[in-house]
Amino acid sequence: MIIVKVGGGREVNLKGVVQDLAGLNEKYIIVHGANAVRDDIATKMGHPTKTVTSVSGYSSVLTDEKAIDAIMMGYAGLQNKRLVELCQQYGINAVGLSGIDGKIVQGARNKGIRVRQNEKTIMMHDYSGKPRSVNHQLITLLLDHGYIPVLCIPILDENNTAINSENDDIVSLLQETLHAGTIIQLIEAPGFMDDIHNADSLVRHISKAELELREAQVEGRMKRKMLALRRLAANGASRIFISDGRVEHPIRDALAGNGTTIQ
Amino acid sequence: MIIVKVGGGREVNLKGVVQDLAGLNEKYIIVHGANAVRDDIATKMGHPTKTVTSVSGYSSVLTDEKAIDAIMMGYAGLQNKRLVELCQQYGINAVGLSGIDGKIVQGARNKGIRVRQNEKTIMMHDYSGKPRSVNHQLITLLLDHGYIPVLCIPILDENNTAINSENDDIVSLLQETLHAGTIIQLIEAPGFMDDIHNADSLVRHISKAELELREAQVEGRMKRKMLALRRLAANGASRIFISDGRVEHPIRDALAGNGTTIQ
Repeated sequence: MIIVKVGGGREVNLKGVVQDLAGLNEKYIIVHGANAVRDDIATKMGHPTKTVTSVSGYSSVLTDEKAIDAIMMGYAGLQNKRLVELCQQYGINAVGLSGIDGKIVQGARNKGIRVRQNEKTIMMHDYSGKPRSVNHQLITLLLDHGYIPVLCIPILDENNTAINSENDDIVSLLQETLHAGTIIQLIEAPGFMDDIHNADSLVRHISKAELELREAQVEGRMKRKMLALRRLAANGASRIFISDGRVEHPIRDALAGNGTTIQ
Repeated sequence: MIIVKVGGGREVNLKGVVQDLAGLNEKYIIVHGANAVRDDIATKMGHPTKTVTSVSGYSSVLTDEKAIDAIMMGYAGLQNKRLVELCQQYGINAVGLSGIDGKIVQGARNKGIRVRQNEKTIMMHDYSGKPRSVNHQLITLLLDHGYIPVLCIPILDENNTAINSENDDIVSLLQETLHAGTIIQLIEAPGFMDDIHNADSLVRHISKAELELREAQVEGRMKRKMLALRRLAANGASRIFISDGRVEHPIRDALAGNGTTIQ
């Protein structure tokens, strides 16, 4: 089983991804982002995406009710359905679902984000949280009947309210629950870069042992990404590919080891 | 089996609908509109919904690519997911799907709309069509495992392109395919009105024989609605309720015959 995580940047070659997947013989599910589309919608709807940085240095989207609307429009609406349409055009019988459909992904609301404001530390509450359980039965039911689940946020919190959540955490939980051996992460970069400003700094291989070390070296969102990778590796993902989603054959290249391979 | 068609007007009491459905003992599926939400999104995104009237007097939305985007955002995104969220909050394990997911509804692209423009009759082509087949297997699979399908446009055309389609036609096809005996249509009016401007003109009962007669008396969208009702009745729907979606208990009132009952 492969979990394909497709980044939500504007330059990801979705057509190339779908073309490659159509030729794949293994079972897979897709988890996609849509941050570029979501940001565009949120701005045009008059409620631009807000980002805050917590006191511990992590930056995250501050998700109010209007931001959930934008996630529903951008992730579960436009991006999910255009991706499902592409799949159908290449013979993949995709079923697009958000985490709230059939309780595919349910979690726990965050207690709040501790931020510094006017020299005080305050707690900001929003509609976001961590995924805690996956409806394994529904995903398996669809896969067993020839459907490919195409998943995205929002997910449900413990009170069945729609919330935002990090795709890295969702993919980790899906990997654990479904015992997926292979993870492909398609991003808008050649792979994991030692120096994001240096195109030649692509790291070809990272051993599982190296992940913790690297986690200590990076900051912000990248720190959380490294933590998620470490969790994937610890829970049994035997191969993780971080690869360029912008190329002609994103999946083929990823599996050929053209990006970063973690194993 | 009941098909619940929920109109896409702003005043429909979705919470009341879901509360009532949570107490229902029969199997059902939901088909919802979202025209108010869609129009709002389309306007704010800079591509307001365009309507044309054909030479034969039917008015319809002219669906270009941006209009499909707005349908994906408004129907499959915001309205569908907020409705699914409500269902989850009332203990209904809803799965929101557009017609393109798992090829739930596939159809044939319209040849074009014949419209008068500058004293000429021209054909306008768009992304719209008629539903022709339903993925009965997927709907049954979900129902048999305790999930409630919550369906909306877009649907797929014969080339697997996302297209707009009339919910009345989709409900007719679903009724035929699933052999649904009961149809509930929730609208922003007390029921079928003899005179739309006169609140006292509610028609309590229409016999199946009367439908054809009434179809001849009305025009525009209402004509198409009457045709759809006649088709429902002819194909085995033993009871059709057209009832007010704005009241406290839309489903309960509909089934109690507080709106229009066709049988």
